[in-house]
Amino acid sequence: MKNIKIAILGLGTVGGGTYQILKENRELIAARCGCTFEVAKVLERDHARLEALGLDPAIAVTDPQLIFDDPEIRIVVEALGGIDFPAGLMLAAMRAGKSVVTPNKAAVAANFDRLRACAAENGVQFRFEASVGGGIPALTAIQEALSANAFTEVMGIVNGTTNYILTKMADEGLAYEEVLKDAQAKGFAEADPTADVEGIDVANKLSILMALCFGTYVPPTEIPREGITKVTMADLEAAKEQGCRIKLIASAKKDTDGSLTYSVKPQLIPASHPLAGVNNEFNAIYVTGNAVGELMFYGKGAGALPTGSAVCGDIIAIAKTL
Amino acid sequence: MKNIKIAILGLGTVGGGTYQILKENRELIAARCGCTFEVAKVLERDHARLEALGLDPAIAVTDPQLIFDDPEIRIVVEALGGIDFPAGLMLAAMRAGKSVVTPNKAAVAANFDRLRACAAENGVQFRFEASVGGGIPALTAIQEALSANAFTEVMGIVNGTTNYILTKMADEGLAYEEVLKDAQAKGFAEADPTADVEGIDVANKLSILMALCFGTYVPPTEIPREGITKVTMADLEAAKEQGCRIKLIASAKKDTDGSLTYSVKPQLIPASHPLAGVNNEFNAIYVTGNAVGELMFYGKGAGALPTGSAVCGDIIAIAKTL
Repeated sequence: MKNIKIAILGLGTVGGGTYQILKENRELIAARCGCTFEVAKVLERDHARLEALGLDPAIAVTDPQLIFDDPEIRIVVEALGGIDFPAGLMLAAMRAGKSVVTPNKAAVAANFDRLRACAAENGVQFRFEASVGGGIPALTAIQEALSANAFTEVMGIVNGTTNYILTKMADEGLAYEEVLKDAQAKGFAEADPTADVEGIDVANKLSILMALCFGTYVPPTEIPREGITKVTMADLEAAKEQGCRIKLIASAKKDTDGSLTYSVKPQLIPASHPLAGVNNEFNAIYVTGNAVGELMFYGKGAGALPTGSAVCGDIIAIAKTL
Repeated sequence: MKNIKIAILGLGTVGGGTYQILKENRELIAARCGCTFEVAKVLERDHARLEALGLDPAIAVTDPQLIFDDPEIRIVVEALGGIDFPAGLMLAAMRAGKSVVTPNKAAVAANFDRLRACAAENGVQFRFEASVGGGIPALTAIQEALSANAFTEVMGIVNGTTNYILTKMADEGLAYEEVLKDAQAKGFAEADPTADVEGIDVANKLSILMALCFGTYVPPTEIPREGITKVTMADLEAAKEQGCRIKLIASAKKDTDGSLTYSVKPQLIPASHPLAGVNNEFNAIYVTGNAVGELMFYGKGAGALPTGSAVCGDIIAIAKTL
């Protein structure tokens, strides 16, 4: 059975989750794919992270060039976070002939065309299913199973932190600050929640969704954006009285003249709409295609194993072509 | 640009929808896939069906052997319906070196292992995304993007007719017979609704879902099955009082000892469960994987264009490997 060597850049939440899945579901994956995967090198300073996962600290490197120069490594998983630094590493990996998988929405959204072009130029694959909606396999579906559709609209609840906050405010009548503290305690929100609550993370994801659905890349910084910090209890009450929920929605619509209208902002969603039932930390991506009509993908948008599931799906898809 | 010749067996709802999508979205598909598709032959007696779609009646044949013997045809779409006859045609097409795509759940469920084995033996592809959930790309996701997961449970609302009937009964207080007549008038139900209302169609789909999620093929005839004909208004009222909806649910669960529990029957679904919000003719497939957690795929489970979207997705996936 073919053994495919991969490298993981960063053994944080997603990098660690990816390794855990490859290890725990090893036999199942081998039976389904006809190959095994070996994490041959890891870019990671913190040896305790390797030990906690049962990985030999000897495979840790601090110089990424050692990974790019290793001809046996075919797939590089970038799970460091950040924008410019990881983007540079992904480009270098692809130039070295390695296919790249990443969950890093900020780096993908900021460098979408450059990363895709680099993959094409170097005859490697670049996959980023985990970058939008965590474990939800929407990006692959949009690009593959749904590729006979002209998409007319895409909407998403693609940030678990803000969806958790809005759900708790609406359903339990708790104040924004109170829920934010609770979310931080539970690990659903960062110590500095700006990227989540101001919609920056959602704009990154919308940029990626638009590029895939409409073939038009709009940098996330050019997407009109409003977060959830101005949503009041009075707004949520008024929404409820109208039979609606307030959700932080990423949306993009293709108008009849071909132009795109897009935004990230809190929107009133009627209770009868499938997105209205997407609560707490769950995510959903709702697309409309000219053949398939309305579709919704629902699941966990974050976390080590859900996000790792998507990264592993990309790794397996690449392995099938090697 | 490569031109791939396909044949369609049967130009009914799905066969016609498939052709319509290939024609209307031709440029888009060519840009995305780098190839064009030509319907070179059609197995169809009714020339009016070809004319209605703008197809030259000269490509119609009544002898399927003319399709199997045509070396230029690479992909055969079986859209005839039935069980044994279309299964025989699919096997013959694969033995003739053609990849096969079908939306035919009854034929796939009754012949699952035989059809898959035949594809493997002949080095061709056999794809059937449209056989469960119409346009919803759940089967491809289960087999590809989610393939790093051990699945523990799969549930589905996979019959639009019965879901429409139960929704109208629950929400509008209409009697079963009345809603059935309405559904028949709207084309959501067959003149003989037995396969739908007795859960036969759902059992076919559950057989396919179980085979893909758990690697275990259970013939649909061996799945315990109860339809919706015994669901009364009193049942629906009692469910509502408990904060639940009654849905016709296909479900299969892997127990800790590895054994499977499965059934097709009306079940009480709590209003907070994502499946509770799947109403009218919509379908949904809800899976739980050991990495990804809970996921739901929601969309249109029937109709010429939604089902054709899934067939076209399969055609494009095959084309990428030719």
